Amino acid sequence: MECVVAVDVGGTTMKGGFVARDGTIHHFERRPTPRAEGPARVIAAISSFVSDLSRRREGLRPLAVGLAVPGLVTPTHAVFSAAFGWRDVPASAFTDVDLPVALGHDVRSAGEAELAYGFGGDDVLYLPIGTGIAGAVVLSGSLYGGAGGWAGQIGHIPVRPDGLACGCGQRGCLAAYASGGAIAARYGASSAADVVRWVSEGDARAVEVWDEAVEALALALATYTLVLDPGGVVVGGGVSLAGDSLLVPLRARLSERLAFRPAPEVRASALGVRAGVMGAGLLGWRAVGS
Amino acid sequence: MECVVAVDVGGTTMKGGFVARDGTIHHFERRPTPRAEGPARVIAAISSFVSDLSRRREGLRPLAVGLAVPGLVTPTHAVFSAAFGWRDVPASAFTDVDLPVALGHDVRSAGEAELAYGFGGDDVLYLPIGTGIAGAVVLSGSLYGGAGGWAGQIGHIPVRPDGLACGCGQRGCLAAYASGGAIAARYGASSAADVVRWVSEGDARAVEVWDEAVEALALALATYTLVLDPGGVVVGGGVSLAGDSLLVPLRARLSERLAFRPAPEVRASALGVRAGVMGAGLLGWRAVGS
Repeated sequence: MECVVAVDVGGTTMKGGFVARDGTIHHFERRPTPRAEGPARVIAAISSFVSDLSRRREGLRPLAVGLAVPGLVTPTHAVFSAAFGWRDVPASAFTDVDLPVALGHDVRSAGEAELAYGFGGDDVLYLPIGTGIAGAVVLSGSLYGGAGGWAGQIGHIPVRPDGLACGCGQRGCLAAYASGGAIAARYGASSAADVVRWVSEGDARAVEVWDEAVEALALALATYTLVLDPGGVVVGGGVSLAGDSLLVPLRARLSERLAFRPAPEVRASALGVRAGVMGAGLLGWRAVGS
Repeated sequence: MECVVAVDVGGTTMKGGFVARDGTIHHFERRPTPRAEGPARVIAAISSFVSDLSRRREGLRPLAVGLAVPGLVTPTHAVFSAAFGWRDVPASAFTDVDLPVALGHDVRSAGEAELAYGFGGDDVLYLPIGTGIAGAVVLSGSLYGGAGGWAGQIGHIPVRPDGLACGCGQRGCLAAYASGGAIAARYGASSAADVVRWVSEGDARAVEVWDEAVEALALALATYTLVLDPGGVVVGGGVSLAGDSLLVPLRARLSERLAFRPAPEVRASALGVRAGVMGAGLLGWRAVGS
């Protein structure tokens, strides 16, 4: 069966697999992203992952490689990534296999997968909450990039103008409260999933950190709603696996923040953490011309 | 000469005139909006204004009437206006003259005038700051309305989550700090223009109120920039007449709030307070089919 090799390179975890033309994932695997070891080691780890996947055929015939990465990206270059310290890395550097390779932005690609295979909707914010937060802004049925391709940086809007310092250099950013990385770091936990578990056990500090994360998200979504009047918001990424622990209070707080208009529907992604790999698959299929 | 009668109904002032097919205004006149006297009196005042303008020909031949009003509007009905207490007022109620009448949203219409006759740009926020604040969101060369036509409510985004109560029922809205109405009310002045004048004279309370207004605008524009990456921001309405007293500190504070990306250009509207009448003119011309 024809397929593409697809890898979604996240801040802490790489997710990879084979994606068929209809979006079906035929193998799904995770590996740690060796971010702490520097720019070159992350590139080498991606290359090994792609090579290992390409060898692992089982009746699958890979036609191309799609790589979803963070930062500023063109189909042929990872132009800039603050997360990984990359500058102008060509697509060919990410793999030794003899297949066409296409790069794309991780959040945009996952948003395209949501658009193609998920809940759909013409005017939707797709908001993956992982190590960081960015948004795919879907307007009138298409991803919107803005004047210079930088749209969707919702993780860095100032929800608390005099609030916590953010790694980006600003203060009070949404991501400083509500990203998986921030939730874990504020508690001193190794992951946001641990904090969510401790919330359910009534741990006071976990409740406080989670509460501030949910309120920051409600503020950001209230702002997005007032400016762009979306038909819905689809929350994805690792933090969305909290399910109702996230969605129930988030919906309530969003409604409280909107006095004169109803809140849009807020749902968890139907694709879950696989949206990124499916998005990388779309990049790969685009590279083979379909 | 063929023209349309155009009236822009603002919160405190109505502006009206004749608009030629090329956007030229051939007569421009202001009247107070009798908002305090109730919904029916505002409608009657608009009707008188249109009748008086229609009689005042001087070689002009009016073909239609365009009315730009606040709230939720269709071409045939003022569906809802919190500002004026209107509900489902038909276009015909606004005039006795025997001409086609078209209604439109004041900020959207002014935004269309900016698009047609002003600075232009494919991805621009047009932000008129008058008695209240709303935005016309121009994306890829068109006004964007959102899933339900409610996009652009930037005046009510929560820039200070625990801040001042706003008339809309929310807290910390941009408009509670930076609208002309709020600037005047916070000082106890009769207009924002007075406060601007006193700022230049070094009045401490005026400086404080103005400073908080500019900071609130910078926060809102930083958020808009991060989410939508506009090519530029065009500030209009009465408060934009403050010119450099507004633009110089606003540009500086917007740049301070954006750590990892440049700020978009922030300009004052080239059309000034006439944008609303030119927008109402576009509505009128649309009613005659051109």
